[in-house]
Amino acid sequence: MAETTMTKIQGLAKQRGFIYQSSEIYGGFAAVYDYGPYGVELANSIKREWWKEMVQFHENIVGLDSAIFMDPRIWLASGHVSGFSDPLIECKNCNTRLRADQLLEESGVEADEKMSEEVINKLLSDNKTKLKCPSCGKNTFSEVKKFNLLVKSNLGDFNDNWENPVYLRGETCQGIYVNFKNVLDSIRVQIPFGIAQIGKAFRNEITARQFIFRTREFEQMEMQYFTAPDIDMKTFESWRKKRMDFYLNLGIKKENLRWHKHEKLVFYAKEAYDIEYKFPFGFKEIEGIHARGDYDLTQHSKFSGIDLSYTDPKTGEKYIPHVTETSTGVGRNLLMMLCEAYTEEKINNGETRVVMKFPRNLSPVKAAVFPLLKNKPELVKKAKKIFDLLKKSFVCEFDDNGNIGKRYRRQDEIGTPFCITIDFDTLEDNTVTVRDRDTMKQERIVIDNLSDYISKGLL
Amino acid sequence: MAETTMTKIQGLAKQRGFIYQSSEIYGGFAAVYDYGPYGVELANSIKREWWKEMVQFHENIVGLDSAIFMDPRIWLASGHVSGFSDPLIECKNCNTRLRADQLLEESGVEADEKMSEEVINKLLSDNKTKLKCPSCGKNTFSEVKKFNLLVKSNLGDFNDNWENPVYLRGETCQGIYVNFKNVLDSIRVQIPFGIAQIGKAFRNEITARQFIFRTREFEQMEMQYFTAPDIDMKTFESWRKKRMDFYLNLGIKKENLRWHKHEKLVFYAKEAYDIEYKFPFGFKEIEGIHARGDYDLTQHSKFSGIDLSYTDPKTGEKYIPHVTETSTGVGRNLLMMLCEAYTEEKINNGETRVVMKFPRNLSPVKAAVFPLLKNKPELVKKAKKIFDLLKKSFVCEFDDNGNIGKRYRRQDEIGTPFCITIDFDTLEDNTVTVRDRDTMKQERIVIDNLSDYISKGLL
Repeated sequence: MAETTMTKIQGLAKQRGFIYQSSEIYGGFAAVYDYGPYGVELANSIKREWWKEMVQFHENIVGLDSAIFMDPRIWLASGHVSGFSDPLIECKNCNTRLRADQLLEESGVEADEKMSEEVINKLLSDNKTKLKCPSCGKNTFSEVKKFNLLVKSNLGDFNDNWENPVYLRGETCQGIYVNFKNVLDSIRVQIPFGIAQIGKAFRNEITARQFIFRTREFEQMEMQYFTAPDIDMKTFESWRKKRMDFYLNLGIKKENLRWHKHEKLVFYAKEAYDIEYKFPFGFKEIEGIHARGDYDLTQHSKFSGIDLSYTDPKTGEKYIPHVTETSTGVGRNLLMMLCEAYTEEKINNGETRVVMKFPRNLSPVKAAVFPLLKNKPELVKKAKKIFDLLKKSFVCEFDDNGNIGKRYRRQDEIGTPFCITIDFDTLEDNTVTVRDRDTMKQERIVIDNLSDYISKGLL
Repeated sequence: MAETTMTKIQGLAKQRGFIYQSSEIYGGFAAVYDYGPYGVELANSIKREWWKEMVQFHENIVGLDSAIFMDPRIWLASGHVSGFSDPLIECKNCNTRLRADQLLEESGVEADEKMSEEVINKLLSDNKTKLKCPSCGKNTFSEVKKFNLLVKSNLGDFNDNWENPVYLRGETCQGIYVNFKNVLDSIRVQIPFGIAQIGKAFRNEITARQFIFRTREFEQMEMQYFTAPDIDMKTFESWRKKRMDFYLNLGIKKENLRWHKHEKLVFYAKEAYDIEYKFPFGFKEIEGIHARGDYDLTQHSKFSGIDLSYTDPKTGEKYIPHVTETSTGVGRNLLMMLCEAYTEEKINNGETRVVMKFPRNLSPVKAAVFPLLKNKPELVKKAKKIFDLLKKSFVCEFDDNGNIGKRYRRQDEIGTPFCITIDFDTLEDNTVTVRDRDTMKQERIVIDNLSDYISKGLL
């Protein structure tokens, strides 16, 4: 059942221009996806809502767009060069590469990616008979090797000897920490304040799965909130609430969201929770809210030699600020929206209609404009005029192809809230038929009121 | 003079939170920049205007967001693996790396990056006495080596042997060409139509210069328009006009823009023009409008084995579509906006005010809200209330620090069109003082009309 729902969503996403496999005409490029015309509009809407909520609505949160590339020492300071790795094994029969911890977990053996090579090797040999290569079914594997997830490049390296690789960022937040002082020095902010950023990050995931849920190239939306040490846990709790409310306010059903508290914390973290969404393949993380303490700014102070402590202008107290992080992914939000919106409904005639019930303000196309008949120039002309009027304010689509029923069905599948039909009455009385995506009810609206009608209907 | 203007703009950009050098606390990372809080708002405004103009306003142009990573064969097909390189030399004395063609050009010797290694070596030895290392002044250089500008990575490579590097894209348009068929198959489009995309690209530039004008990591805004072969030059001309109008409509002064026609065309190009902007360091390209013929789709048909020809549904004619490309950069647009907006004005008291006269709708902050006095809780409370009202519709800022004159000056330097002051009269009559960035005139506005007043003022 879960399988079928996911297969259907994936099929619709491709067929209707939301998501394409990367380099498809070349046979596909693993673990990377492209957003098609409706995917990019949906992603942009999601990013806009996040930015509005985090930056525009908060007096004390500012935006940032740091580059993907940075001084490689930043990844030494953050601990990624030494510690950011997964246990890699290879099937000796078919050469498929696997994450040892995942193979163990899926065979009912408790394991995680933080375990040492020795521990994992022992688990693998102790449970040899249980294990099976998911590709070929054999059970002979190579020894475990810890593989670093940071992607390396030769940017700025003109010798081509790879001695000093420059990393693509593995997370966007490091760009925020290293600009903490720049922001303090150039913007009128005082602690507590936050810095928010949307941008790409890259990880050499050994196995990427579940469609766009885990990809090697992905886009993060992260906010780092800097506070005095003594109020960090209060801040943490308030951000937990705010972030859950964000998803509820977007219209995600309450029963599809839940909290996951991290039991094993990295040594510097004081507390960590994930918001999980109920995907067809199970509850999975969509956002992490983490109390990172003063670890990051302390590390960068140490490695850069620049003091990143803060002096409170009122009390004169000096400290390294503590950080609450909220971190989510554009791709995961998009996938959640596709899953949440996907609806099959029986309609009058026994047919099933597929409709993407996106939150209206996030829909890729806000209104579609149809002339009733393609071969009536007066209808087409009038419809174009209405399209030209509406496109100034909304992403619209013009479609004069096929019968109206077919056009409705196509717009339902891309989640367009309003379909506007121009017919012969329109030429007489300047009214149009507006059909609602969810109720399928039709209303006659005066053209002059159309913009207002749509604006109000999107709220 | 040019030097000073550029230095001033660069200084303001840093000091006022538009642009920071990458990894500054680590001593800076060459040829990469980060956008600060006002830089990212300005960049987002620019991207939004471009997207609106190209995608939203055109019935037959759709958006796309293809990934940075693609199948490496795409870069073989495009010609980048073999031909996308610059002539690299190194000063034997101080090891500074230089582009040989630039060194020659700056010494009055005609040269370009397409010349063969032999030709450049001959020019270097013929003109030896004229040449000087810009760093140390010596004139002994290594032999020329063609250096490929594609940035390589180990994405998806778990052997770490660099035998099969995966490239970061050198231009975003290839992601459009390889998705041409996906878009055709999933979206109701017919030729002529366009695909538009905003995204990052990377080039291993040997020398990066002029602030954010040429950087190794940059963001492109590209649109590829597909037509029948016989109308491609007509289309090309119409896009030339549209793209120039775009900049004029944004408010760029006519005398600061000009056309540059390419004299030497790559073999497949039919025509190529650049729009140049008069930066303080001279007229330089901000956008290229290029007639690329059927080269790109032909190459990808050949290399992928998938036929990318199009059959006209009306005439049945089959052809490989021709492409008109419009390609510009977010960073260059942002730098142009900073240069165009930068204004020094003498004001009454003989002082000079620096004001960033951005097009109002592109300004990073649309309105700033000030309580007249910080230590009057009733003023601060009222001001916050107005801030909370306005922030729903506009990026706003709240500032209660220092005297009003200082706050105005700060907002002038970030280009905020409206400053709103809440004083004791406000508490009596619900009016506020709105001060205009450009005229510095002050008007008394009723709070209920404030949103409307700002909305209208941004047009």
